[in-house]
Amino acid sequence: MLRWMTAGESHGPALVAMLEGLPAGISVTTTEISEQLARRRLGYGRGARMKFEQDQVEILGGVRHGSTLGSPVAIRIGNTEWPKWEEVMSADPVDEEILAGLARNAPLTRPRPGHADLAGMQKYGFTDARPILERASARETAARVALGTVAQSLLRQALGVEIVSHVVELGSVAVKDGTESPTPADRERIDADPLRCADPDASARMVAEVDAAKADADTLGGIVEVLAYGLPPGLGSHVQWDRKLDSRLAAALVSIQAFKGVEIGDAFTQARSRGSKAHDEIVNTPDGVRRLSGRAGGLEGGITTGEVLRIKGAMKPIATISRALQTVDVTTGEAAKAIAQRSDVCAVPAAAIVAEAMVALVLADATMEKFGGDSVEEIRRNLAGYKAALVIE
Amino acid sequence: MLRWMTAGESHGPALVAMLEGLPAGISVTTTEISEQLARRRLGYGRGARMKFEQDQVEILGGVRHGSTLGSPVAIRIGNTEWPKWEEVMSADPVDEEILAGLARNAPLTRPRPGHADLAGMQKYGFTDARPILERASARETAARVALGTVAQSLLRQALGVEIVSHVVELGSVAVKDGTESPTPADRERIDADPLRCADPDASARMVAEVDAAKADADTLGGIVEVLAYGLPPGLGSHVQWDRKLDSRLAAALVSIQAFKGVEIGDAFTQARSRGSKAHDEIVNTPDGVRRLSGRAGGLEGGITTGEVLRIKGAMKPIATISRALQTVDVTTGEAAKAIAQRSDVCAVPAAAIVAEAMVALVLADATMEKFGGDSVEEIRRNLAGYKAALVIE
Amino acid sequence: MLRWMTAGESHGPALVAMLEGLPAGISVTTTEISEQLARRRLGYGRGARMKFEQDQVEILGGVRHGSTLGSPVAIRIGNTEWPKWEEVMSADPVDEEILAGLARNAPLTRPRPGHADLAGMQKYGFTDARPILERASARETAARVALGTVAQSLLRQALGVEIVSHVVELGSVAVKDGTESPTPADRERIDADPLRCADPDASARMVAEVDAAKADADTLGGIVEVLAYGLPPGLGSHVQWDRKLDSRLAAALVSIQAFKGVEIGDAFTQARSRGSKAHDEIVNTPDGVRRLSGRAGGLEGGITTGEVLRIKGAMKPIATISRALQTVDVTTGEAAKAIAQRSDVCAVPAAAIVAEAMVALVLADATMEKFGGDSVEEIRRNLAGYKAALVIE
Amino acid sequence: MLRWMTAGESHGPALVAMLEGLPAGISVTTTEISEQLARRRLGYGRGARMKFEQDQVEILGGVRHGSTLGSPVAIRIGNTEWPKWEEVMSADPVDEEILAGLARNAPLTRPRPGHADLAGMQKYGFTDARPILERASARETAARVALGTVAQSLLRQALGVEIVSHVVELGSVAVKDGTESPTPADRERIDADPLRCADPDASARMVAEVDAAKADADTLGGIVEVLAYGLPPGLGSHVQWDRKLDSRLAAALVSIQAFKGVEIGDAFTQARSRGSKAHDEIVNTPDGVRRLSGRAGGLEGGITTGEVLRIKGAMKPIATISRALQTVDVTTGEAAKAIAQRSDVCAVPAAAIVAEAMVALVLADATMEKFGGDSVEEIRRNLAGYKAALVIE
Repeated sequence: MLRWMTAGESHGPALVAMLEGLPAGISVTTTEISEQLARRRLGYGRGARMKFEQDQVEILGGVRHGSTLGSPVAIRIGNTEWPKWEEVMSADPVDEEILAGLARNAPLTRPRPGHADLAGMQKYGFTDARPILERASARETAARVALGTVAQSLLRQALGVEIVSHVVELGSVAVKDGTESPTPADRERIDADPLRCADPDASARMVAEVDAAKADADTLGGIVEVLAYGLPPGLGSHVQWDRKLDSRLAAALVSIQAFKGVEIGDAFTQARSRGSKAHDEIVNTPDGVRRLSGRAGGLEGGITTGEVLRIKGAMKPIATISRALQTVDVTTGEAAKAIAQRSDVCAVPAAAIVAEAMVALVLADATMEKFGGDSVEEIRRNLAGYKAALVIE
Repeated sequence: MLRWMTAGESHGPALVAMLEGLPAGISVTTTEISEQLARRRLGYGRGARMKFEQDQVEILGGVRHGSTLGSPVAIRIGNTEWPKWEEVMSADPVDEEILAGLARNAPLTRPRPGHADLAGMQKYGFTDARPILERASARETAARVALGTVAQSLLRQALGVEIVSHVVELGSVAVKDGTESPTPADRERIDADPLRCADPDASARMVAEVDAAKADADTLGGIVEVLAYGLPPGLGSHVQWDRKLDSRLAAALVSIQAFKGVEIGDAFTQARSRGSKAHDEIVNTPDGVRRLSGRAGGLEGGITTGEVLRIKGAMKPIATISRALQTVDVTTGEAAKAIAQRSDVCAVPAAAIVAEAMVALVLADATMEKFGGDSVEEIRRNLAGYKAALVIE
Repeated sequence: MLRWMTAGESHGPALVAMLEGLPAGISVTTTEISEQLARRRLGYGRGARMKFEQDQVEILGGVRHGSTLGSPVAIRIGNTEWPKWEEVMSADPVDEEILAGLARNAPLTRPRPGHADLAGMQKYGFTDARPILERASARETAARVALGTVAQSLLRQALGVEIVSHVVELGSVAVKDGTESPTPADRERIDADPLRCADPDASARMVAEVDAAKADADTLGGIVEVLAYGLPPGLGSHVQWDRKLDSRLAAALVSIQAFKGVEIGDAFTQARSRGSKAHDEIVNTPDGVRRLSGRAGGLEGGITTGEVLRIKGAMKPIATISRALQTVDVTTGEAAKAIAQRSDVCAVPAAAIVAEAMVALVLADATMEKFGGDSVEEIRRNLAGYKAALVIE
Repeated sequence: MLRWMTAGESHGPALVAMLEGLPAGISVTTTEISEQLARRRLGYGRGARMKFEQDQVEILGGVRHGSTLGSPVAIRIGNTEWPKWEEVMSADPVDEEILAGLARNAPLTRPRPGHADLAGMQKYGFTDARPILERASARETAARVALGTVAQSLLRQALGVEIVSHVVELGSVAVKDGTESPTPADRERIDADPLRCADPDASARMVAEVDAAKADADTLGGIVEVLAYGLPPGLGSHVQWDRKLDSRLAAALVSIQAFKGVEIGDAFTQARSRGSKAHDEIVNTPDGVRRLSGRAGGLEGGITTGEVLRIKGAMKPIATISRALQTVDVTTGEAAKAIAQRSDVCAVPAAAIVAEAMVALVLADATMEKFGGDSVEEIRRNLAGYKAALVIE
């Protein structure tokens, strides 16, 4: 079983990520993690912060000389903006007078619709949204991407699995229906696209969509898809509700900030189709048993089928909007305009990278559950034995 | 923390459900559970089994004189068809000769596309689909509904929460856009509708859709919605990925057999809208702080806002189809027609009852987490204190 | 990961036990479970209930034709005394007048020192100890023994592991220091001993101890030891506090009713020795690397070493004593004599069987974690590959 | 539910500790954590490392201006010796030639009896003990003490609970039987004692015991006791095996490096006594219901009784011994002397501080479970309501 947690506030000194239950022998380097974090800053429509933000990655535990030890991996991602926030976000008490003089320390009392602000303040008993938004912020996803890098390395090195993500819808623009799924060979091309969209035509329209929203001081959401190639059949299980892999993947995607919907394969289209057109027929081929289609997204009964795994997540538009929405000032009870500091138009391309990470973490967890093993070599050996003994390949 | 598990095979002697972490003092009776199980058998388009199937409910632990004890609740749901299956599904060994003479015991070697059959056989090493389909079957959801009854009672008695479900899409038929959400007052009316659809017009078209599919020996899926009224703000949390309530609800819905997609509030519509139109503005009213709309489905930052909670699940069409799909016989490797025994056209209305149960279980879990308490009275007291101290009501 | 829970009250209709995460292909029968339950009723010093108590075992799920399916195993243990308790312990409401006429239904308001009675009543808000003692009762351990049977079968069939338990101390009588540990070959002999003591001389003195206590209307506790033979090195892990196998075993033993102390190997003796005499030196032998002694109980750094695993648990004397202890009546606040119904002098021999079960469950869990696998065959294959690749055997 | 994990290697750049599930509003400062870490370095018999070791504490998340936010607390404890180890323990690959020249990087192939070395190497597939011992080292307990500081603050501020620890046995020297338990008022005095022993007479003999062992180049273990004052009745539960508080405390203590035995109250003495002398009689007093004795250690049925909680842990002697034990070189299979670098004679006084931390974490977890609440104020309010409604005080 893999377990992972993150900690850290958006403007605190650092984020920290911890991942427990890994085998020994996964190749991991600081550079690889930094590269993935750089991908998380990609995308047309991001505001200033993404440009000057640098993720200072430091592996604090679990890795030695480029290889995991079997012990928990801990990664620190330093906040390069920390000097500006040292007093406002200090863990230790700061002189009240000093704080009083800092504009940045003023309580944020006008919660944003669409954010955790108000519900969080009510839950934890704050009249300042700062303690809530610091943690609810999408900055936290950097920590997930760092861990996702390790999970992807495990999947690649032990199982030969490759993960791809792309943007399939941005605001009102969608990739044309029936477009073929991108493969690992398309990864570089997708990353080079301004919106991480695999379809250049749709991408161009998405750029225009972003420009239009920006002109209106508005924001956008969208839909991302993650694909995993090379999975063996048999990850996850149908035997208990919380062991179904589709359920665990759904939880992982919806746990991402601003993600509120998920679709395994073509679930919503399937729901509107007849049974005779909704499932993936099974055939024998010279390469073994295969499916004629991929509507189920590579999962049946909560178990991987050995086909490409495919899952989509719906991200709502950024809730911090220049043309601020109506709210209530919690200290006065009066109507007010919501807090509005940030200037991103959309973060969907980056969110796809986060979605990759979450999918990788869940798949890595299911891998450890299925194959056990305390070293990459042991997992590989167990996998090989399993594949050789498959009822039908 | 609530924990729940179910056990039992579809044609075994019984299903068993267990729910741990409950407070004392919840009113629960066998009759109430039976009533909920009866609702699970509702719906136009069900086959013969639903008619003769009787759920024999027995509470084996955790309840005394109609009230929970604080100890785990265990519920047994007997299978009235058991005498027909006693030998085929016997836990103990049965004479090989007897088994050989039973048609029902013949190995099922032609896995159905869309079911756990093939992936399950590969995972667990069987050449007979019986051991897989017995557990993957939707029959298991009866155990969830039994537990959901207890969870709903807890929510109602401790928090005053009421849960409603209905069918919003069936195959190609959808409730008209913008139709108002049903409330607890509509429950009886919905249950009386052949498809548990709140809109009589759509319901009529759904009946026709079922009839047409039936005529073609085909099956249907659909989309259900669950609403929870009366939740306080502050259930769930933004602080860690796996504590977000929307993530936990997504997992719970997608864990239901044949559910592969989920939408919190209007997530997919939100994803396609601009930020200025996607969020729920906050206003002060004589009754306290309220939202002008409900697009977020009552959840922000993974926390309940105090507004109506609303979540949808997409169910694929039944995979057991008379006009059986193409598959491979695992013993010969030859092309074959998939197993096809059952005759339901659609189970969407019943699935909505299961979705109610899963939502109730997750909300009950989040209630225990937020309010603690070992008796209904203690939870009520803790809730009252919390509400009285809310930063802004 | 294995998960297990039990439910059911002491005088309710049945106990239920559920075990999740098992592989397919473990041989299990009702008879084997009944045999283990019969062992739990063994032992000199038990009262009347053990004699007329019959455990009616029914496997409700997870097993077919004598072999596990991979789905959760659920076992029901019927209470043969149920007819006498049907009204007092009815899950459904019973007419108040009927209840008023039943002596057995009178509230138990004089909590027993040494039992969960008082703390449980305070926690759950009862003025009657019945709801607490029904669940806190040692009767619940029958459910654990049923699951332990399955766990032992897994360990035996997949790993070749055999578990032995015996009583090492009873009241003031102890097996002579330095007595050799019993092996699987001694199991039958131990079960035949009135106190499940491996040393006939000590056993005779224990019988006298029981007789003397009985004459004084008093009760006894004692110390049991569990040994596991045939474990591979590498179960458990040092990398995180809650993955250490010794920690998990300690939790499992102390979770048994009346168990309040635990010792891995010779921990307390080790604590009082010097380092040079406290550890197990490592040597190479024709049969591979071995230890010259077994003080560590087969666990170093929370990991099995491949030597015999050995753990002891201390059980306090039965708290229901004829010469009842002083207490307070919770309804009046007056001093009173505690409830005193049962007449066992000691249950230590039976508790050793329960301890076997708990050790087996923890070891089975660690086995699944280390080797993964969804069938006994797959675990065996993974184990063989691991053993063949051991750094040093 | 609280969750906590630690990461980091003994000679790596830092340890990291993470604690999830905390309420907002706990006062915590870096200074308080440092003070607790300093207490962990106390004790006669420690080697050189403790003297020059400085724990550089940095709170990375979860705390702002001296108060918790409700988000996970993450603490980094820097390793002041890191510059000496930067290459040997680098997470990123290091030039092979550079490594070859470093004596410190030489593989450790002679595993120590009594350590995780050999079992860990076998499990994770290493021929060098370094990757194992770096994580198995007691250095990791600093991370636990850091988290324990937060847990103790929660317990003190929300419940008024105070925790005390002391050494009751060191090698062959034991505090006199029947000595009264120290209280919070004794804390300073105990910390000032060279062995953190509450009995000056025993302490003097312990100093002599350490001196004698040191003269013989040997090591010592011992037994520590932790007491918690001010707990309400009702933490933990009897209803499921893994919710019993004594079981969870036993797991926590045995999870500490070198701890292999545990005793709740006087469990081993109780096991050897008759029932009439083993339990704590209940009486009514002007201050409410009390017990006449404390043999049960403040826990009955796995639930706190409201009396002083008392638990002991047995620590084996340090396994790194100058007069090194016999072992096998894993690369040659030849007999060899085990690795022997460190020079502590005993670490029992420090281990008592770690035991305090583990007890505090478990009690804080049980507090959140019982009282829920997302701020210290909310927990206090829930506690007050509970106490006021107690069946009998």
